[in-house]
Amino acid sequence: MIRVGIFGATGYTGIELVKILARHPQAQIAFATSDSYEGKKLSDAFPCPYDIPLVAHDAAPLDQIDVAFLALPHGASADFAKRVLDAGARVIDLSADFRLHDAAAYKKWYGLDHHAPELLPQAVYGLPELHREEIKRTRLTANPGCYPTSVILGLAPILRAGASEGTIIVDSKSGVSGAGRKPTLTVHFVEVNENLAPYNIGRVHRHLSEMEQELKEVNAKASLIFSPHLLPVSRGILSTMYVRLDDGWDEERLRDLYAETYHAEPFVRILPSGQLATLTHSNYTNYCTISIHHVAEVGQAIICTSIDNLVKGASGQAVQNMNLMFGLDETMGLL
Amino acid sequence: MIRVGIFGATGYTGIELVKILARHPQAQIAFATSDSYEGKKLSDAFPCPYDIPLVAHDAAPLDQIDVAFLALPHGASADFAKRVLDAGARVIDLSADFRLHDAAAYKKWYGLDHHAPELLPQAVYGLPELHREEIKRTRLTANPGCYPTSVILGLAPILRAGASEGTIIVDSKSGVSGAGRKPTLTVHFVEVNENLAPYNIGRVHRHLSEMEQELKEVNAKASLIFSPHLLPVSRGILSTMYVRLDDGWDEERLRDLYAETYHAEPFVRILPSGQLATLTHSNYTNYCTISIHHVAEVGQAIICTSIDNLVKGASGQAVQNMNLMFGLDETMGLL
Amino acid sequence: MIRVGIFGATGYTGIELVKILARHPQAQIAFATSDSYEGKKLSDAFPCPYDIPLVAHDAAPLDQIDVAFLALPHGASADFAKRVLDAGARVIDLSADFRLHDAAAYKKWYGLDHHAPELLPQAVYGLPELHREEIKRTRLTANPGCYPTSVILGLAPILRAGASEGTIIVDSKSGVSGAGRKPTLTVHFVEVNENLAPYNIGRVHRHLSEMEQELKEVNAKASLIFSPHLLPVSRGILSTMYVRLDDGWDEERLRDLYAETYHAEPFVRILPSGQLATLTHSNYTNYCTISIHHVAEVGQAIICTSIDNLVKGASGQAVQNMNLMFGLDETMGLL
Amino acid sequence: MIRVGIFGATGYTGIELVKILARHPQAQIAFATSDSYEGKKLSDAFPCPYDIPLVAHDAAPLDQIDVAFLALPHGASADFAKRVLDAGARVIDLSADFRLHDAAAYKKWYGLDHHAPELLPQAVYGLPELHREEIKRTRLTANPGCYPTSVILGLAPILRAGASEGTIIVDSKSGVSGAGRKPTLTVHFVEVNENLAPYNIGRVHRHLSEMEQELKEVNAKASLIFSPHLLPVSRGILSTMYVRLDDGWDEERLRDLYAETYHAEPFVRILPSGQLATLTHSNYTNYCTISIHHVAEVGQAIICTSIDNLVKGASGQAVQNMNLMFGLDETMGLL
Repeated sequence: MIRVGIFGATGYTGIELVKILARHPQAQIAFATSDSYEGKKLSDAFPCPYDIPLVAHDAAPLDQIDVAFLALPHGASADFAKRVLDAGARVIDLSADFRLHDAAAYKKWYGLDHHAPELLPQAVYGLPELHREEIKRTRLTANPGCYPTSVILGLAPILRAGASEGTIIVDSKSGVSGAGRKPTLTVHFVEVNENLAPYNIGRVHRHLSEMEQELKEVNAKASLIFSPHLLPVSRGILSTMYVRLDDGWDEERLRDLYAETYHAEPFVRILPSGQLATLTHSNYTNYCTISIHHVAEVGQAIICTSIDNLVKGASGQAVQNMNLMFGLDETMGLL
Repeated sequence: MIRVGIFGATGYTGIELVKILARHPQAQIAFATSDSYEGKKLSDAFPCPYDIPLVAHDAAPLDQIDVAFLALPHGASADFAKRVLDAGARVIDLSADFRLHDAAAYKKWYGLDHHAPELLPQAVYGLPELHREEIKRTRLTANPGCYPTSVILGLAPILRAGASEGTIIVDSKSGVSGAGRKPTLTVHFVEVNENLAPYNIGRVHRHLSEMEQELKEVNAKASLIFSPHLLPVSRGILSTMYVRLDDGWDEERLRDLYAETYHAEPFVRILPSGQLATLTHSNYTNYCTISIHHVAEVGQAIICTSIDNLVKGASGQAVQNMNLMFGLDETMGLL
Repeated sequence: MIRVGIFGATGYTGIELVKILARHPQAQIAFATSDSYEGKKLSDAFPCPYDIPLVAHDAAPLDQIDVAFLALPHGASADFAKRVLDAGARVIDLSADFRLHDAAAYKKWYGLDHHAPELLPQAVYGLPELHREEIKRTRLTANPGCYPTSVILGLAPILRAGASEGTIIVDSKSGVSGAGRKPTLTVHFVEVNENLAPYNIGRVHRHLSEMEQELKEVNAKASLIFSPHLLPVSRGILSTMYVRLDDGWDEERLRDLYAETYHAEPFVRILPSGQLATLTHSNYTNYCTISIHHVAEVGQAIICTSIDNLVKGASGQAVQNMNLMFGLDETMGLL
Repeated sequence: MIRVGIFGATGYTGIELVKILARHPQAQIAFATSDSYEGKKLSDAFPCPYDIPLVAHDAAPLDQIDVAFLALPHGASADFAKRVLDAGARVIDLSADFRLHDAAAYKKWYGLDHHAPELLPQAVYGLPELHREEIKRTRLTANPGCYPTSVILGLAPILRAGASEGTIIVDSKSGVSGAGRKPTLTVHFVEVNENLAPYNIGRVHRHLSEMEQELKEVNAKASLIFSPHLLPVSRGILSTMYVRLDDGWDEERLRDLYAETYHAEPFVRILPSGQLATLTHSNYTNYCTISIHHVAEVGQAIICTSIDNLVKGASGQAVQNMNLMFGLDETMGLL
């Protein structure tokens, strides 16, 4: 049994972690933390059947766990990562603190001096489809952002194959849980409902830094426009991506490329010709669903991907990483 | 032209007032206030096409208006009502401050000492279907709450006729705009969406005080259980009401009673037999839609009413009251 | 391993069965049927990751299963139940065909002559909280309707204790998946969205027959008004129930009664004082969540229950029944 | 008073026409038709307060109107257009029958031989911002499609100025009323809700033909990829458009261009810098809201437009066209 601690259990990713781990045959929740609901139970903080007691972050008994999931705001995460690693346990961090390899880039995008730059060299970007072997060996996994998961999985094959040049257009749409549980006017029901709102479009959303870091490792010329939109749904991300193709690429060749890249991946599904990825394909699962469409007349591909932002985009992928880090079947508790 | 001032223009009832008044042929918005968005335009505070400048509440030029709509929190409203009346203009107050005739009841239900108890005697409860003639003569109208509008219009005929004894069950469901625009966890999109949540059920919701005040004027024995539920929609209230009937009442007699009561009312619609009131019947209109269903086997009536909580439940009814107070056609700007 | 056949796999309850059984450690799907999608895969019929081949109902290999789940329309179910039983397998029927003990009542409420009245005596109403021991022994379980599950679990304790007389008001609200997957104007997105619609209120909804059959076994005087409403959500039922109490009952005594009744039940949760049942409590789980509220002033109890209509209200409860019928841990695959 | 006939009054655009015309000071509904609800009232066909009698299409008294709005399926519209024109009244056709100038193109995209090709030369594409003067003079207006309205208004300035070369990416998202009121699995609440579904992406959606016809008149090199998505909302279209710019264009120059183009337009709003168009900006109004964002790093513009698909995208624009055709103030009944 792997003994697990969850920091920040009362946010949406924390609650999703509890739900997934509660049915995981090899994991056991040792503690769950919340500063706002300290002394209460998880079922007091969210309408759910989990009567798990909540302790303050600082009161968490680090000697009772093998791994900690950090579902804390960026900035706060790095501090706790250090403490957990010092106490001898491993860390899966769901914040942005260890995703960027470079502390200067972190400062630029997040406006903070990094709290633990000395840990960056050992941190692995936890996208199993790109970094499976490193994840197996690390003690500190930086769980990817939700948008980046949907974008990198959709574009990596085409960029690795060198099939495209020029700026790729990424038009993404996300459910509201991606914005976190803190009440603001932006997530007020009446502002979101029956609405669709683009925000931080172009090249200003923080997740762009992760996407380009990872995609430039695959193809140095990768360049994106990334336009997120807030959707009136609770969960799910759909990314519609427009890629100009070099001559010689048609739909069949594209399909072969994606099939070859992902045929052994347990959580990537390529849809057959004629089907397009939708939120429903992936919601409440750990899958990334990908559809491929070629527009011959103008030499462009339209790649659509969907994920559940709380599962493959956060807590499910975190458990997938835990499985890898502890030598378990990668799909355990996730099918 | 009636010159109108709107206090609290950036809440949902304030925005709805602007929208209704913008197309009213005899009204002209002289100013709109907002403390939080002072110096900006309404279109900066809410995605809408109204570039109306916003002034602080205290900076409102009271000498430029004939009537003020107060869309302010209770407590704050009474103070501004006094100032406006002193400045010689009339007041339509959308808060709860002047709905209860009795300052002690106000204190009991709202926990505040009333700021202007001396004005209570002249305040009229602004439900035209019950108090039309008094509204025409008053300078201070207390616009009814949204739930009470839906409940009183549904029950007044049956209670006035003395057709029922015993506790009436009122099961109401409201859209989220009724909870106001202030961000809280209760109105976070993810908490409301795909959910339905009862709250303040039984005899504890503040609106019960208004309902029973008005219904007891009609029938001294009126007694309710009132159970509100938060619906995952932006607007609309449906009240399903269960009334035990005395012997001698059947559906036909009930229908005659309601038809007679409301046949001249411009904003009450009785549905024909076999149709039930839904939110869609009334949303984006100033109508209260009523359906009547008799359950012969157990001698009970089920009365359903729907209103748009922002229109007949707030701003539309406020304009209906303005029309009455200024001698205009009651339906002007509202059809 | 229990070999399972699913009849009617492309409706919402069929898809939910696949999802639950796919992660059940002791069940294995032998076949899934669909007349409309014969020859295709489940993933062609619904956006999901299950590439299960679909055979016509008549082509199902009955000799390869231990149990069949029938997610077919009423009328059709009885025929297949007979065939499956004759082939030596057991049946869990999710239609209404075997819920009523009496073929005449079935004819009255469903307008059909029963296709297999000779099987009625062996059919058990599959609500484990009421009929656990009989379910363990039967070869034919009639899985309860969704509304009845939410109502019977909420009212059985209070009726069994004889704490109430008179007609009980049941005001229920259901998500749209309860109406099935067949496209009609009633379930058109634009008709349902931002709406709330009562339908079949009073004493005419078919599920009333099940509720009163079961509740009258508990207390012969049970009598209900049942008013369903269509909610703009995909899943979940909330039933708000109003019960007049005899003297001598207060909230504490009520709470003791429910605690005692359900303390050993794995899938019934009683909320603590001050919390009210909402859809979110139960959605995507097999729980029935119950809240108890006493209105002392008028001597009434308000019992709220929530279930996920596709899980505890259909497919989850069906698997719970399978577990019982095959001697497995009742909660297997359901937590 | 303009006497108006509405053909196809029980679809979503028909109902919206009734609603708009009911408050139009110079229009009077002479008749409304429906084959499916013949003999009933509009309020029987849809939950609304309009008790307008419905006659069969063929029974419409053409001699009693000055203009007919045709809210009929394509194919059917052309036949009635002919009859109405022959009877001496004018026509505003909301179907696709007269939008394409060329009968061969119509055949290609709609798969039908045109029923009235002889009328094509006199038909005017009813986008006032492009064809105001012709609309004033015609007796047959082809009301634009909803997607095309949102796309053409967003791109015309930039294309007319010759600021861009190459394929423009149009990523559009539409509410469900755009799909019509006929019940199909695609518009089943449970299939749409909590989902987002791309469909007909690339260069296959029928509306592409209109968009390119109109935009090529402005700039012969116009070429689009058009990817519609079905949004879980009832109304509204947001189009996010990605345009590569020639050197010399920055955000200021773009803003000047759009301001100059649209400064006199009553129903086009350009948002200030830093604001992005959302559905809420335009829903329940006849406005097209446009935001302009320049991504300097990659030399691209992102133009977002929003409209209400039932108002500016259909019935509101149709009334705007009626106002023009009859010499009324263009905004009458639409503010």
